[in-house]
Amino acid sequence: MFPLEKIKQAQKRISEVVVHTPFSYAPFLSEQSGVTVYLKKENLQMTGAFKLRGAFNKIASLSEAERSKGVVAASAGNHAQGVAYSAQHFGIKAVIVMPDSTPLTKINGVRYFGAEVILAGSNYDEAYAYATKYGEENGLVFVHPFEDDEVIAGQGTVALEILEAASDLDAVIVPVGGGGLISGIAAAVKGINPEIEVIGVSASGAPALKNSFDAKTPIDSLSVRTIADGIAVRDCSPVTLNYMLETVDTFITVDDNEIASGILFLLEKQKLVVEGAGAVGIAALLHKKLPHLTGKKVAVVLSGGNVDVTLLSVIIEKGLIKSNRKIKLTVTLVDKPGSLMQLTGLLRDLNANIVHIAYDRTSTDLDYGDANVTIHLETKGKEHQSEIIKVLHDNGYLSNEFH
Amino acid sequence: MFPLEKIKQAQKRISEVVVHTPFSYAPFLSEQSGVTVYLKKENLQMTGAFKLRGAFNKIASLSEAERSKGVVAASAGNHAQGVAYSAQHFGIKAVIVMPDSTPLTKINGVRYFGAEVILAGSNYDEAYAYATKYGEENGLVFVHPFEDDEVIAGQGTVALEILEAASDLDAVIVPVGGGGLISGIAAAVKGINPEIEVIGVSASGAPALKNSFDAKTPIDSLSVRTIADGIAVRDCSPVTLNYMLETVDTFITVDDNEIASGILFLLEKQKLVVEGAGAVGIAALLHKKLPHLTGKKVAVVLSGGNVDVTLLSVIIEKGLIKSNRKIKLTVTLVDKPGSLMQLTGLLRDLNANIVHIAYDRTSTDLDYGDANVTIHLETKGKEHQSEIIKVLHDNGYLSNEFH
Repeated sequence: MFPLEKIKQAQKRISEVVVHTPFSYAPFLSEQSGVTVYLKKENLQMTGAFKLRGAFNKIASLSEAERSKGVVAASAGNHAQGVAYSAQHFGIKAVIVMPDSTPLTKINGVRYFGAEVILAGSNYDEAYAYATKYGEENGLVFVHPFEDDEVIAGQGTVALEILEAASDLDAVIVPVGGGGLISGIAAAVKGINPEIEVIGVSASGAPALKNSFDAKTPIDSLSVRTIADGIAVRDCSPVTLNYMLETVDTFITVDDNEIASGILFLLEKQKLVVEGAGAVGIAALLHKKLPHLTGKKVAVVLSGGNVDVTLLSVIIEKGLIKSNRKIKLTVTLVDKPGSLMQLTGLLRDLNANIVHIAYDRTSTDLDYGDANVTIHLETKGKEHQSEIIKVLHDNGYLSNEFH
Repeated sequence: MFPLEKIKQAQKRISEVVVHTPFSYAPFLSEQSGVTVYLKKENLQMTGAFKLRGAFNKIASLSEAERSKGVVAASAGNHAQGVAYSAQHFGIKAVIVMPDSTPLTKINGVRYFGAEVILAGSNYDEAYAYATKYGEENGLVFVHPFEDDEVIAGQGTVALEILEAASDLDAVIVPVGGGGLISGIAAAVKGINPEIEVIGVSASGAPALKNSFDAKTPIDSLSVRTIADGIAVRDCSPVTLNYMLETVDTFITVDDNEIASGILFLLEKQKLVVEGAGAVGIAALLHKKLPHLTGKKVAVVLSGGNVDVTLLSVIIEKGLIKSNRKIKLTVTLVDKPGSLMQLTGLLRDLNANIVHIAYDRTSTDLDYGDANVTIHLETKGKEHQSEIIKVLHDNGYLSNEFH
């Protein structure tokens, strides 16, 4: 089993740089899920994700001679920022290899911390291969995102902070991508109190570790597709799988719709920006994936907050429609002056705010002279929407709702 | 001067219910503004705003006899939630009066805490008048949102927590609406260390308190209009104005664009959802409104996080365009098969993602046979946008950028 002592050592190493993130009770989520939920807010970590802990501990654990040569990593995400930030702290060189197609915002995010960025390869595997080779040729230490005991020990410090704040937990819920975070957390939890259940949650669009865990042997995926890019891992690491098989009790998955609702919930109710990977635990609780936790006291790790605001905007828009706060309607109008005024008058009386409107007179299913009007309305909930549809219907508008 | 002792008393009263919110260093903001910035995260307060502190202290300070009759308040916002939450805690009746047009989400937000909601009046003033009358007639204690010493004392506890965490501050920046928060904070700050500067920030669309502060006499506004609805106060309270004139050193305003950029910054860089009112201090720092703070150590109060996600979505969309991560282009195409394919081929080669496209063949400034195509693209920044415009131009597309 992974030694608890190593995690305690890591805690000492990282304590002056890594933020002791807030851990707090989540009243709405507790009421809605029937579980007493506490949130560990690693999205408020420096660099916006727990990854800093592992990267920092790894680099801090190197000998002065090793470290002085610099480090290299392959990542376009949170690990890259963790490595870059840590290298900057130690005043050493960091080279981050990213695939060619990496968005400029991610490149700049790492350059901001003084790292050198090399774009190489058309996907993560190619960038990874380039980075390890580059490290060997240039004498830089390669910092693996999860298949490394010092990295795992660093991630495990999340659990030490959780258990210091609440030693009487029944379970800890942890996002699983490569398995580094849960390996570290499970080692710490089981080392301190084996009674506490450790639950892993993956995205169903990236099921390598879930499938491997169930089969008790590494099974790679053919492809991955999920909005939780932080845990979109294709291949299973035998190293973290072995740790997980020893210490993880339960392993489930959630899909992108569930993850999106988790992100929206955290945004609205907890006032927190959490990325897809960080929201899988909340998604699982909101969608009753863990019924055996009812009435239990549970910590959920919000692993990071680095989500693209464009995605956030799409999640909000879809979420508004799903939660009946927005509706898209198509109404057929007689094509003459005053028709639209009559319709908009009804909508005003209904207190429904128009946010988009489009006209189509050339649809083949229309009588000559008529027009289809597509309207997006802000609404106050399901009852309000039913009322709107009823009034439009009663006033002779043929109304087709579409989502 | 407002007695510090009263605030310390409030701190004892509220300590078991009100969250001791995180207070932490903000590296990005510090670098960007040249000020060493710490954030007091009252958006992570129970009910999503500092208002709980004042409401709870007021209700806790009542005699058993007074309290048992219940309380009444007029508010559709954070004060309403603070009163409802506190009343629920004490197991007493709470009546919240809101204007007729209040959105259902706000009504439900208060009902969630067991309060009774009465819709009365077409605006806040009418709801306020109804609430005070209702209180007198039914023997309920009216809880004013800011013109009340126990409420002000409760809000002042924010400053006690700040100064416990960082006693060596040079300044504290506080949002100003009715003036309750800044009255309490300034009293605590000046009572402990008069050397610390207290800076108030209002929305320029709700300038009553700023104008009154400058004129040293209450001046009401004729109308208010700002996205910071939490501080959209029309009339100046002589009570809080007097406290402010005694203790506040500096008073500035920020406009809606500045506030929106503050909200987006906190969302992206701090992973926090903060409402308009809560973001005014950040807006002031980002837009260099307080140049004398350069190099100083400053606490900024993020007063709350209760922002409508619809507004958040609009802020994100506008912000993406302003920060060159989205562009809207109109391109004229020869109206024949293959034209659009040729254009989209160019855009693919430029790595520009199309998120919206619209066709118009009937604009009078078009030759017969041509079409205007409006395209919204996701882009990687200013350079990327210049490249796109250049390539489209070089390929004979007449390109007009519009924002």
